[in-house]
Amino acid sequence: MILILKQDAKTEAIDKLSNQLQEMGFIVQEIKGEHTHMLGLAGDTSHIDRDQFGRIDIVDSIMKVSEPYKLVGRKFHPEDTVIEIGGQKIGGGNFAVMAGPCSVESEEQLLSIARDVKASGANFIRGGAFKPRTSPYAFQGLGLDGLELLKMARQKTGLPIISELMNNDYLEEFERDVDIIQIGARNMQNFSLLREVGQLKKPVLLKRGLANTIEELLMAAEYLMAGGARDVMLCERGIRTFETATRNTLDLSAVPVLHQKTHLPVIVDPSHGTGYWHLVEPMALAAVAAGADGLIIEVHNAPECALCDGPQSLTPEVFHQLMKKIGKIREVIA
Amino acid sequence: MILILKQDAKTEAIDKLSNQLQEMGFIVQEIKGEHTHMLGLAGDTSHIDRDQFGRIDIVDSIMKVSEPYKLVGRKFHPEDTVIEIGGQKIGGGNFAVMAGPCSVESEEQLLSIARDVKASGANFIRGGAFKPRTSPYAFQGLGLDGLELLKMARQKTGLPIISELMNNDYLEEFERDVDIIQIGARNMQNFSLLREVGQLKKPVLLKRGLANTIEELLMAAEYLMAGGARDVMLCERGIRTFETATRNTLDLSAVPVLHQKTHLPVIVDPSHGTGYWHLVEPMALAAVAAGADGLIIEVHNAPECALCDGPQSLTPEVFHQLMKKIGKIREVIA
Amino acid sequence: MILILKQDAKTEAIDKLSNQLQEMGFIVQEIKGEHTHMLGLAGDTSHIDRDQFGRIDIVDSIMKVSEPYKLVGRKFHPEDTVIEIGGQKIGGGNFAVMAGPCSVESEEQLLSIARDVKASGANFIRGGAFKPRTSPYAFQGLGLDGLELLKMARQKTGLPIISELMNNDYLEEFERDVDIIQIGARNMQNFSLLREVGQLKKPVLLKRGLANTIEELLMAAEYLMAGGARDVMLCERGIRTFETATRNTLDLSAVPVLHQKTHLPVIVDPSHGTGYWHLVEPMALAAVAAGADGLIIEVHNAPECALCDGPQSLTPEVFHQLMKKIGKIREVIA
Amino acid sequence: MILILKQDAKTEAIDKLSNQLQEMGFIVQEIKGEHTHMLGLAGDTSHIDRDQFGRIDIVDSIMKVSEPYKLVGRKFHPEDTVIEIGGQKIGGGNFAVMAGPCSVESEEQLLSIARDVKASGANFIRGGAFKPRTSPYAFQGLGLDGLELLKMARQKTGLPIISELMNNDYLEEFERDVDIIQIGARNMQNFSLLREVGQLKKPVLLKRGLANTIEELLMAAEYLMAGGARDVMLCERGIRTFETATRNTLDLSAVPVLHQKTHLPVIVDPSHGTGYWHLVEPMALAAVAAGADGLIIEVHNAPECALCDGPQSLTPEVFHQLMKKIGKIREVIA
Repeated sequence: MILILKQDAKTEAIDKLSNQLQEMGFIVQEIKGEHTHMLGLAGDTSHIDRDQFGRIDIVDSIMKVSEPYKLVGRKFHPEDTVIEIGGQKIGGGNFAVMAGPCSVESEEQLLSIARDVKASGANFIRGGAFKPRTSPYAFQGLGLDGLELLKMARQKTGLPIISELMNNDYLEEFERDVDIIQIGARNMQNFSLLREVGQLKKPVLLKRGLANTIEELLMAAEYLMAGGARDVMLCERGIRTFETATRNTLDLSAVPVLHQKTHLPVIVDPSHGTGYWHLVEPMALAAVAAGADGLIIEVHNAPECALCDGPQSLTPEVFHQLMKKIGKIREVIA
Repeated sequence: MILILKQDAKTEAIDKLSNQLQEMGFIVQEIKGEHTHMLGLAGDTSHIDRDQFGRIDIVDSIMKVSEPYKLVGRKFHPEDTVIEIGGQKIGGGNFAVMAGPCSVESEEQLLSIARDVKASGANFIRGGAFKPRTSPYAFQGLGLDGLELLKMARQKTGLPIISELMNNDYLEEFERDVDIIQIGARNMQNFSLLREVGQLKKPVLLKRGLANTIEELLMAAEYLMAGGARDVMLCERGIRTFETATRNTLDLSAVPVLHQKTHLPVIVDPSHGTGYWHLVEPMALAAVAAGADGLIIEVHNAPECALCDGPQSLTPEVFHQLMKKIGKIREVIA
Repeated sequence: MILILKQDAKTEAIDKLSNQLQEMGFIVQEIKGEHTHMLGLAGDTSHIDRDQFGRIDIVDSIMKVSEPYKLVGRKFHPEDTVIEIGGQKIGGGNFAVMAGPCSVESEEQLLSIARDVKASGANFIRGGAFKPRTSPYAFQGLGLDGLELLKMARQKTGLPIISELMNNDYLEEFERDVDIIQIGARNMQNFSLLREVGQLKKPVLLKRGLANTIEELLMAAEYLMAGGARDVMLCERGIRTFETATRNTLDLSAVPVLHQKTHLPVIVDPSHGTGYWHLVEPMALAAVAAGADGLIIEVHNAPECALCDGPQSLTPEVFHQLMKKIGKIREVIA
Repeated sequence: MILILKQDAKTEAIDKLSNQLQEMGFIVQEIKGEHTHMLGLAGDTSHIDRDQFGRIDIVDSIMKVSEPYKLVGRKFHPEDTVIEIGGQKIGGGNFAVMAGPCSVESEEQLLSIARDVKASGANFIRGGAFKPRTSPYAFQGLGLDGLELLKMARQKTGLPIISELMNNDYLEEFERDVDIIQIGARNMQNFSLLREVGQLKKPVLLKRGLANTIEELLMAAEYLMAGGARDVMLCERGIRTFETATRNTLDLSAVPVLHQKTHLPVIVDPSHGTGYWHLVEPMALAAVAAGADGLIIEVHNAPECALCDGPQSLTPEVFHQLMKKIGKIREVIA
């Protein structure tokens, strides 16, 4: 950490601060230029809240040099984390596709989609049992009944399942029944949820919040790992910008940036990331080309029921064609 | 709601859709121009998820006309909501200031600040017992011990207290002990928390999320009111933009926009909204001039301990001077 | 266009407005629901400024239905525009790569890079003669001398050249000497420049502004085409968001969105779009996978001179490897 | 400037770089911690482009410490700049209001509004002769005829005039005829325009670009002052964010931030900053309370012609009432 001092800082005040910092265990070095005067702090500053220094009279601004995360960082864990779940691997060159309906609606719907996406090569079944909805009046998901349907689909297809956990009320059920616990974008900084899910030591897929930086995503993952989780996947699903032609702006450059900073696998969600099914294929392929370790994609099977599903779901047929192209791009990238 | 149809939509398909919509209970009207063709839907569309219409082949885009909220809207509740708590009123011309430390640290600290801000005219004591922290390694607040200190400060000063609730674990304690439950920005769309807090039917201060629109803030308040809450306050505390000179961009135009759309009181937080104590005074005064119903401000009393507090807290002296100016601006605005 | 009327709008006022609109040449239709009342306007509304309607007392809000652009839109020009320049084709399945140094520095530098990128398969030489710089004290480019060097490089390699025009002062020189005129991001809404460049009827590459929507990019291209230009290319080069890990957020979903809305070719700039050379390869490949018609990439040849060039330039060797992968992804996508 | 070195940087490479930097005239200091290693550069780094250092192999990241501007900064010019134009003063405690129509339309219109705003206490007449319009098909202003009308209004009322210059074509006319040259938001980084306008040495009002940081605004002003201008005013007029309830997000915290960093006067435009006339009054008052040195406000006089003007203009009556309240807030703030 570096403290930039004010131009008019007096020598005694600087000395006093320097002593205080040394008592806190830091090695302090002065850097003095014609127009600037700084104190460089060496030692472990990762537990320091830079805001603490903001009220010091003689400090103009503060720069943090070392990364605020440890367990998720590549610095002390250079090799890729490879996650194994029910025979499927993710990360370190292993690619995984999680596919299924936005919401679990019925046994018939879920089984049909699950069999279709398995036939096309998907590795996991995704499906929402509890749904975060902007309106209190909208359908909030089948709840625990939805979880039962997901278990049944797993039994029939052999594919592990991923579903979103929205609060601490169903920790036990998700620990027992779900293969990957999904933390949604709106809960990325629900720190008490992160802490408790971390303690389950289960695989977790953590979605980036709509207004969260890559560093904040890594800090949220640090909460999970500090709690005890090891198998954490990070998911880019679009951030909020001024552009309105897409529902969100899918930030694909987060994929190579994350690969540089962390050893954890990076998954991309082109369905929520764009909001329109006709943008899912180009952005899914782009995500693979950018180096993603996996995709999570919404697939729905009811073209005859126009009002049943969201505008971002693929039909099983379109998904099938997409999977073929994904395989070919994977070969080019490898 | 209006459905804009694709240029090449066939008459039979339009008729089929029109019939489906009428069966759903809507009154459907066609609007036809040279280059555009639309269906206007009248009837109650507030429970409709516009995404449902997004997959219909012949629909190009959808426009929602009526507001998606009811209980929070001015449409059916034109007069201002006035909230009364422990003899203090907020809204409908009644102005309230909530002041205190960011985190509750000790009996001595809290009491000293509480007495100071009361003497300066504050109406409520604010203080964090549970703190949402970006890093799992940072101080997370005194927890229930902090609540006890707040209760003690209330007893000694007579001022009601406000504190942040971060999850469902302490609903009972907050219901019993706290006068206003604060929902933090990161939990604005923690829908299960909103639902459960709403059922307590206690006063709530709901902070706007860092990347949430004004409409989403109103929908989150709708969750609280749909749960049973009546005394809901909305709090503008800065949104996330590309600007880095301030910690957030305080969106003061949200104040008059909210006053137009809702009957609920609007509070402004210039401390978190700017992140720097020297910006708190100008932005607090600006908020009052813009018509805010109240302010929530961080005050700290330890100028001698440079490392104790954040860069956005005022000293009791600066707060005292600010309160005087606030009173005068209130007179101009009234 | 649809005018949403206020709830309390009186019948006479509505009739009066309706008559006014009909006198302006519109076909007006009323749509009336339980809670909403609208006027639908049919006829050519593309020249209407929706702000004009904003002061009408009885109007609550306005929705524009038809697109505000004509010449750039796919509606009236469904087939892809294919641009031919010096034997190189762009668009309609033809892929082009523009490569070269950020700034033209010397004959030796430019020729060496030009020969390298040609050998790797680039189709155009890019190089800045006039540089938009945030600081008035920074190097502003070689100016007309830089143009002369670019012409020389074209002569020696046979590759057409692209360079940025910053104002109306050098219209004549750019018309005569440059093959593609680049309009930079900061000039995307410099409407007088757009108008005059359009009149040259030369190929133009128009970069998206840092805070401009896709619709605004299309309207800027409409200026060029309304002036007389036909061979216009649109360039996604990153938008400004809250994320700081990359210099800009490269919005690759703009590629398929633009392909849907316009017949013009879409080029991606992964160098400025990310700001870091190690992100250029993954994002270049992602852009190709997303369906881009071309790339514009910075290449520099001075690894021994660490202080000569920006952090986003590739070495010729890295560029060469990238070009091979691009070719393979193109095959998968085709 | 501080160069953060990579963990694995070798001693010889660090020494080599350190020597290079010393040859460039810097004083170089090493700062070494357990996990970090930095080089601190002292000396004049204001002309350095930090990107130059980005390709150095052993450098991980760079931090700039001193401000990149000089002429506009308070550091070397601590007292407020006071601008005098035609007997009106702005800055250093002098408040000015610029009012008038968005576009100059006719002699009758302009004169009527000019007399009204003068009677209410405005200090300058604003009016657009050249209008930047998103669509090439929209009305682009009366051009030089509009300037003539503004001159006439100045003659009849005695108030100096301000109007927007969009390109270098009319430099001579604006130098001769206009009292304050306005540079619009879309031209804030039109560096050749800034350079040429600076050389006129006339008063300039520089609007902040829609996606420009406060530092970039200051750098654009630095262009004007480096060219020779002295009387430069900075104007906050709203930035682009995800919020859609207002046309832009008026960033009022820019007012105190600018006052801290620069000696130049700060003007606020609540008309463009919000986009709706009913938000102009609260935000104008808020701007005054935040410490603005002036306001620029759209006023229009044709309530009977509903389709003549934009949704953000005040009637002369509303403007008159606003001016009274502004005066009272000014008294509280002083």
